[in-house]
Amino acid sequence: MTFTSRIAVTTRGFSDVIDITESVEAIIAECGIMDGLVCVFVPGSTASITTIEYEDGAIHDLKEAIEEIAPYDKPYRHDKRWGDGNGFSHVRAALLKPGITVPLLKGKMTLGAWQQIILIDFDNNKRKRSIVVQILGE
Amino acid sequence: MTFTSRIAVTTRGFSDVIDITESVEAIIAECGIMDGLVCVFVPGSTASITTIEYEDGAIHDLKEAIEEIAPYDKPYRHDKRWGDGNGFSHVRAALLKPGITVPLLKGKMTLGAWQQIILIDFDNNKRKRSIVVQILGE
Amino acid sequence: MTFTSRIAVTTRGFSDVIDITESVEAIIAECGIMDGLVCVFVPGSTASITTIEYEDGAIHDLKEAIEEIAPYDKPYRHDKRWGDGNGFSHVRAALLKPGITVPLLKGKMTLGAWQQIILIDFDNNKRKRSIVVQILGE
Repeated sequence: MTFTSRIAVTTRGFSDVIDITESVEAIIAECGIMDGLVCVFVPGSTASITTIEYEDGAIHDLKEAIEEIAPYDKPYRHDKRWGDGNGFSHVRAALLKPGITVPLLKGKMTLGAWQQIILIDFDNNKRKRSIVVQILGE
Repeated sequence: MTFTSRIAVTTRGFSDVIDITESVEAIIAECGIMDGLVCVFVPGSTASITTIEYEDGAIHDLKEAIEEIAPYDKPYRHDKRWGDGNGFSHVRAALLKPGITVPLLKGKMTLGAWQQIILIDFDNNKRKRSIVVQILGE
Repeated sequence: MTFTSRIAVTTRGFSDVIDITESVEAIIAECGIMDGLVCVFVPGSTASITTIEYEDGAIHDLKEAIEEIAPYDKPYRHDKRWGDGNGFSHVRAALLKPGITVPLLKGKMTLGAWQQIILIDFDNNKRKRSIVVQILGE
């Protein structure tokens, strides 16, 4: 069985982090699938999905590490060509990738106690995102 | 239902980026599965799959960021032991990982309008790759 | 059909790398599913799953690259708030992500000949991990 739903969020961009764990859990509860795979995927090339302990310290640290990996103020070829100003966003999103797949067991994702699913929006603007949650199983 | 196919590509190595989106779409059209998960996976330990806006600027920027993360000309222990000269390739591939899983909805992957699926070949040579596309669904 | 099992490992933390390929293969053999997807996922926010050529050189090189990306001795906000001392672990795990999904074809994962599935434990302590292996297919 396959079930698909979406989570709508508004972000502030610039590595804005949104905890979407409860929204994903609500979709799982709704669909009635007990065992299988939960794929959480953000369409677009300037945002990513990962997991972290959702607390201000760790989130700050993650943002800082990402700023080192692909600095905001470096000259990017993408910006030179298209003038978008979000070259850094594209690099970050390609490195962190757009999705995550989590096992579903007896109606619950097998996350750790302090492990939340997050969207990180790397774009250089407010964005509306429509995150896809696809559940496969029985 | 499960359907598996492969995409054969020849790369130049050294972070060569190949847009495989249309090839994946052709396999989806062929298999007739409408809703489910599409797993795109490259066998081997010196290449990765991710998504990006496939245009020269962003691709150049991604390559540059990866060169900073695991520089080509740093001394690698792998090269010292095996003389392959591709220590940098192994590190890059382990960090970016070999696959991606994308939701399939009504026969289409839920990619953004400017989001393409790419193979990045990190090896230090021309390579023939046989990318696996596995589709699960109904 | 869905099949779930777990792999118990004890790690030394500090980027300890464990080759879990054979354990995953044993679970596949046990479940009898021939074609589908294998999701390998570590619960918790301080460890990751990826693939690499499992040999001392490449593993050393990967650890070194990760140490550059999120250095152990940088001041982390997470540590300031919670005193855990594992701020670096959280950042590393969020960047490398907790899981991997591998196609299963005729009873075998489509890994390369020198491509192993590894757990990297980034925590700052010995840890017991219970890695989830979820197989979906037929």
